[in-house]
Amino acid sequence: MAAEQGQWVLMATARSPTNIAVIKYWGKRDEALILPINESISITLDPEHLSATTTVAVSPSFDRDRMWLNGKEISLDGGRFQSCLREIRRRAEDVEDEKKGIHIRKEDWERLNVHIASYNNFPTAAGLASSAAGFACLAFSLAKLMNVKEDCGELSAIARRGSGSACRSLFGGFVKWTMGNAADGSDSIAVQLASETHWDDLVVIIAVVSSRQKETSSTSGMRESVETSSLLHYRAKEVVPSRILQMENAISCRDFATFAKLTCADSNQFHAVCLDTSPPIFYMNDTSHRIINLVEKWNQFEGAPQVAYTFDAGPNAVLIAKNRKTASLLLQRLLFYFPPPSGSELTSYLLGDKSILQESGVQSMKDVEALQPPLETKDKTMVQRYAGDVSYFICTKIGRGPTLLADEGQALLSSETGLPK
Amino acid sequence: MAAEQGQWVLMATARSPTNIAVIKYWGKRDEALILPINESISITLDPEHLSATTTVAVSPSFDRDRMWLNGKEISLDGGRFQSCLREIRRRAEDVEDEKKGIHIRKEDWERLNVHIASYNNFPTAAGLASSAAGFACLAFSLAKLMNVKEDCGELSAIARRGSGSACRSLFGGFVKWTMGNAADGSDSIAVQLASETHWDDLVVIIAVVSSRQKETSSTSGMRESVETSSLLHYRAKEVVPSRILQMENAISCRDFATFAKLTCADSNQFHAVCLDTSPPIFYMNDTSHRIINLVEKWNQFEGAPQVAYTFDAGPNAVLIAKNRKTASLLLQRLLFYFPPPSGSELTSYLLGDKSILQESGVQSMKDVEALQPPLETKDKTMVQRYAGDVSYFICTKIGRGPTLLADEGQALLSSETGLPK
Repeated sequence: MAAEQGQWVLMATARSPTNIAVIKYWGKRDEALILPINESISITLDPEHLSATTTVAVSPSFDRDRMWLNGKEISLDGGRFQSCLREIRRRAEDVEDEKKGIHIRKEDWERLNVHIASYNNFPTAAGLASSAAGFACLAFSLAKLMNVKEDCGELSAIARRGSGSACRSLFGGFVKWTMGNAADGSDSIAVQLASETHWDDLVVIIAVVSSRQKETSSTSGMRESVETSSLLHYRAKEVVPSRILQMENAISCRDFATFAKLTCADSNQFHAVCLDTSPPIFYMNDTSHRIINLVEKWNQFEGAPQVAYTFDAGPNAVLIAKNRKTASLLLQRLLFYFPPPSGSELTSYLLGDKSILQESGVQSMKDVEALQPPLETKDKTMVQRYAGDVSYFICTKIGRGPTLLADEGQALLSSETGLPK
Repeated sequence: MAAEQGQWVLMATARSPTNIAVIKYWGKRDEALILPINESISITLDPEHLSATTTVAVSPSFDRDRMWLNGKEISLDGGRFQSCLREIRRRAEDVEDEKKGIHIRKEDWERLNVHIASYNNFPTAAGLASSAAGFACLAFSLAKLMNVKEDCGELSAIARRGSGSACRSLFGGFVKWTMGNAADGSDSIAVQLASETHWDDLVVIIAVVSSRQKETSSTSGMRESVETSSLLHYRAKEVVPSRILQMENAISCRDFATFAKLTCADSNQFHAVCLDTSPPIFYMNDTSHRIINLVEKWNQFEGAPQVAYTFDAGPNAVLIAKNRKTASLLLQRLLFYFPPPSGSELTSYLLGDKSILQESGVQSMKDVEALQPPLETKDKTMVQRYAGDVSYFICTKIGRGPTLLADEGQALLSSETGLPK
């Protein structure tokens, strides 16, 4: 093996987005292969604001596979990492780098070890699908490094083995995870329904909700739901299939009213199924409920949906506004009910696309204090504000899928040692 | 009409219990007749601690039907009051009171007006099925006054027209509300499954949870669920029928493990259906969730259910302990996590059967402060206590059905004027 002669390090760096399901995935029909009991649809969030960046490196000098997550070495023993690595290695091809004099033959990959470094540009603990971005990025960057010929659809099946919803992060825009029929799960893949440019009016505001509760992991949560909730099986079999069709149609026609109605209903039904689990699982808390009530009241007052909400396995709200005008009105409402704790800075309370602050007419803490109860408030004397119940907001949009970062300056590993920079 | 000659007042006073469903009623198949989409099972709570007392009076001097609730006159215009009054009047019989010289013939009742005064021995606003106790008591006391021959089963169908769950308050112990088939709803009645003496080990502790939210009324809530939740229809058709059979069996065998499992699962499924409603309905809050987690963890730790929980259309928890020993251990846990706010008295924080305090070894605020985290607590350094999140507790038990109070001293109306004392 020619490659083993030198002390070279070959690297690839990629960035992959997170995604949030608007028709939810909850429940596996196969735990090992991570095959879902129903199809799901997601939007991909702009990687500028929420993404994982992963550098993968290979070198004959590496004595074992190693991985660092947000700068800290973690174990690669987990079956999910091993599944992804094995599946990608099986598909590796010859790699030639004339400039560096590297020649790796297809069969060499089995013996070469890799280093992986991954970094999220948002707090992992915030419960914002960091594993989806992470496994999508792992599959994508390893595929680039190993010259894997498979397309993003096929890679999505590999990312799926790491974390089910990761398969949907292989594409930008609007993405469907198809159930598939094959026993080996090879056709349970993600497909893009529409790109990020198809419906670019939509604005996403995420409320990261303060929580003291330790949450049930989605892996164990969905296993318990499959085992104990009869409502889940009815949902998967009888409710989701028609919602998938309606949602595909709503996205295709940019029909916000239907999109919002389905998104909210499906989020609520997912949490209903969690409650129907034994013991029951509570992901939403009083703050989540207040955000839902705020949106529902406003939508009702306007006579048509302005904003959709959806919640994953945690209390954070993902709010999708019809357009920038609506998003700025939404932000006014959010900052009215959930102002930053006194003494904090507005600029560290609204992350992501901060230009929305200007459009909302809220540019200082004084502006926040001066906000009036929204028009739809029935009894304006009874209004309560909940400072501190939201940790921060992120304003973002629907974004693109994974990209290769060619600039070595963005790599997380040293091109000389293959260790974290 | 002989009766019209004198200025007499004829009265009857009765006391009726509340009840709490362990297999829930949620959803009507007929809004006017109040016919349910599924059967339900309840336990009747001891009227000593939670009941309505109602005095009904008739006199030729009354110029119209009038009613006072907790001392305040209220309108009788509502269709529900009118339904109950009409149905009872239709069944009225001749009444003779030799001592007072009163002779009312069957046909006189149509022209005679009634006064009704009702009083709950617990806060109406606490969301503890005050309307169930109230309408049961109305039907029962009017039936006594008007010498109605129908039994409690038949009266339950009349109480049902006032408030669905009221039908179950016509009996003590364990009660089933049968769906019935008749178009006029005459066979949608309550039947007693077992009397209050059948399983008298059980102890009930109610946590009245502080709440600032205005809750969706159960009437409009269940209408919205019927209209928008597909999970509700599946529940009513496919889940509840088998649960009813299992619950009847568990009660008959005094099988606490099955009783508790079904009670908790059915409460959670009812709240799941509320969440699946559009817009979603939240009756439980973070405090409710914490109480559930407390019970679930304890039950799991013991390897067998010690306590069952159930929540109606509000955040209050109704906890059913296997026996007094378990109830005293439950109370220790409740007072540990939800101590009274500082400066308050323990005796006004635990209402009902206060002897449970002694059995719990908690007789002063000092004892509350000295309580240790329960054995099942995993990380004892991370434990948080929530003073003020519960308004008060009520310790009670399963109790008897409606009773006539013969002592005129207990009447709420004056036997001379027919007006509130």
